[in-house]
Amino acid sequence: MRLAVVGVTGLVGQRMLQVLEERSFPVTELIPVASSRSKGKSIQFKGKAIPVKTVEEVLAQDNPEIALFSAGAGVSKKWAPEFARKGCYVIDNSSAWRMEEGIPLVVPEVNSHTLDRDSKIIANPNCSTIQMVVALNPLHRAYDIKRLVISTYQSFTGTGKNAVDQYTSELNGEAKQEDMAYPHPIFENCLPHCDVFFDNGYTKEELKLVNETRKILESDKINITATAVRVPVHGGHSEAINIEFEKPYETSDVVELLTATDGVVVQDNPGQNIYPMPLYAHNKDEVFVGRIRRDYSIDNGLNIWVVSDNLRKGAATNAIQIAEYLIDSVI
Amino acid sequence: MRLAVVGVTGLVGQRMLQVLEERSFPVTELIPVASSRSKGKSIQFKGKAIPVKTVEEVLAQDNPEIALFSAGAGVSKKWAPEFARKGCYVIDNSSAWRMEEGIPLVVPEVNSHTLDRDSKIIANPNCSTIQMVVALNPLHRAYDIKRLVISTYQSFTGTGKNAVDQYTSELNGEAKQEDMAYPHPIFENCLPHCDVFFDNGYTKEELKLVNETRKILESDKINITATAVRVPVHGGHSEAINIEFEKPYETSDVVELLTATDGVVVQDNPGQNIYPMPLYAHNKDEVFVGRIRRDYSIDNGLNIWVVSDNLRKGAATNAIQIAEYLIDSVI
Repeated sequence: MRLAVVGVTGLVGQRMLQVLEERSFPVTELIPVASSRSKGKSIQFKGKAIPVKTVEEVLAQDNPEIALFSAGAGVSKKWAPEFARKGCYVIDNSSAWRMEEGIPLVVPEVNSHTLDRDSKIIANPNCSTIQMVVALNPLHRAYDIKRLVISTYQSFTGTGKNAVDQYTSELNGEAKQEDMAYPHPIFENCLPHCDVFFDNGYTKEELKLVNETRKILESDKINITATAVRVPVHGGHSEAINIEFEKPYETSDVVELLTATDGVVVQDNPGQNIYPMPLYAHNKDEVFVGRIRRDYSIDNGLNIWVVSDNLRKGAATNAIQIAEYLIDSVI
Repeated sequence: MRLAVVGVTGLVGQRMLQVLEERSFPVTELIPVASSRSKGKSIQFKGKAIPVKTVEEVLAQDNPEIALFSAGAGVSKKWAPEFARKGCYVIDNSSAWRMEEGIPLVVPEVNSHTLDRDSKIIANPNCSTIQMVVALNPLHRAYDIKRLVISTYQSFTGTGKNAVDQYTSELNGEAKQEDMAYPHPIFENCLPHCDVFFDNGYTKEELKLVNETRKILESDKINITATAVRVPVHGGHSEAINIEFEKPYETSDVVELLTATDGVVVQDNPGQNIYPMPLYAHNKDEVFVGRIRRDYSIDNGLNIWVVSDNLRKGAATNAIQIAEYLIDSVI
């Protein structure tokens, strides 16, 4: 499999290389792609240095069968169709194509059935959406989700390298006035501000949680509201999710369902201080679910706490799982 | 006014001394009280060193008119009645008396009317409850709160000095195995665990948000559910609060109501990156409210984001405001 990784020098791109190696993904040729700023650089893959190319060079010279894009919405919007036209499957980690009709928005454990030979552009959902729907899908199938109230605790690694740089300089007590990733300090602070604001007062991140979740779970009837918050955590998103089901449930059945769900690990033994935490989710591919408890404020209410490594299952791993599914069952 | 501060060497006790000085509280004699471990120590107040006493010494020798207790529930349970018996008003920052019938649980902006000459023991609510009810009270009066879904982002200073020590040692890369405040690291982590767990899966902190809020707002009909989370923030609690009202509202009226509310500062201009943040709430007495936006997932739904300094309005300042109200209007 000739595989291009577009945006290979970014946090997600680097994590993609790591996950490809770990999972022994059947790469015959790895084509690392970055902007012209990285000209002359090489990346390391399976112990070899491979020179980085530009998208233009790859389109002219190479013929990748699958391309993993993680270079921002602008790059995806412009170049994904060019790759697709050449017969390449593009798995795009940006927000560019997610809500386009006819573009599959895929979390393999949930809706791999939406993948087909002809859909060359496939969207990888937003990090905070991916981990949530992995946990919600089995519950939705069993009890019909009526409404979700979501509060996120998102790592700054989700913003990219410049956010890690900002945090690191603040941690080291160095003022970093230029190239700040955020309009405010992130060290020892919480910013109720992920991605840009819309006129209705919500951030783009909050609306991703609303719209992408509905598309993936294939239900426009699910009512969703969200508050997305950036916290000083170096990897790993957490989510407090309040669920109202249409149907009654038993907590023990919820635990059983989640325990049996592919990609989910239940960590729920408060008496032993066992619950999911971002620090312990680092470099893991699973979605960790805990604090599973009835919400007594409403009929059929449930609270859960969901944690995952935002750069792995929230980005790199999910994209590569889509690629694996394509190879196994579609192409 | 002869004023005792019991637990004077703790984080809240120290903050009480600071707030008393700042507000020119009419202290004629300050009586600093701590456990026998602090024997021989002095504290600084208004530029003077004052030796610390034990509760036993104070009860035998002194005759405080008001005592601010912040030394844990055990100390309060044992000693507050002794002080009260001697005619002293006890304003207790622990959880010991909050839910006792007949004990006023007071946030002065909200329910100072529950204070009277004969109630010698007065409970200061939990930090996360205080800041929330200051913001919710005017909205509840106007639109009747039906249900609240709360997610907290709580500073480790709320746990006390040993939590600050744990964080600091983790920040400095020193392993601190003994005397850990938490069962897990707090630096660059989120712990969905504030105070102890009950059998129903909720923490004591989460149930404080339920029960204290109902008592202060004087309504058992408000349905409340909460997830309380400790975050690596050095002072300042944040709360994502989802509100369902019985009555319809206009967002502009909510902003107007909150702007006119004593103790509240509205910070809500997302386009200019203006919203409340814990880092900027340090050493302030106000409750900051922002991200005020309609929740489209339900009729009469509203999302707000509430931040305050947990050691000030959440503890020391609120206790001292109660004392001020006692002096002005009750005693």
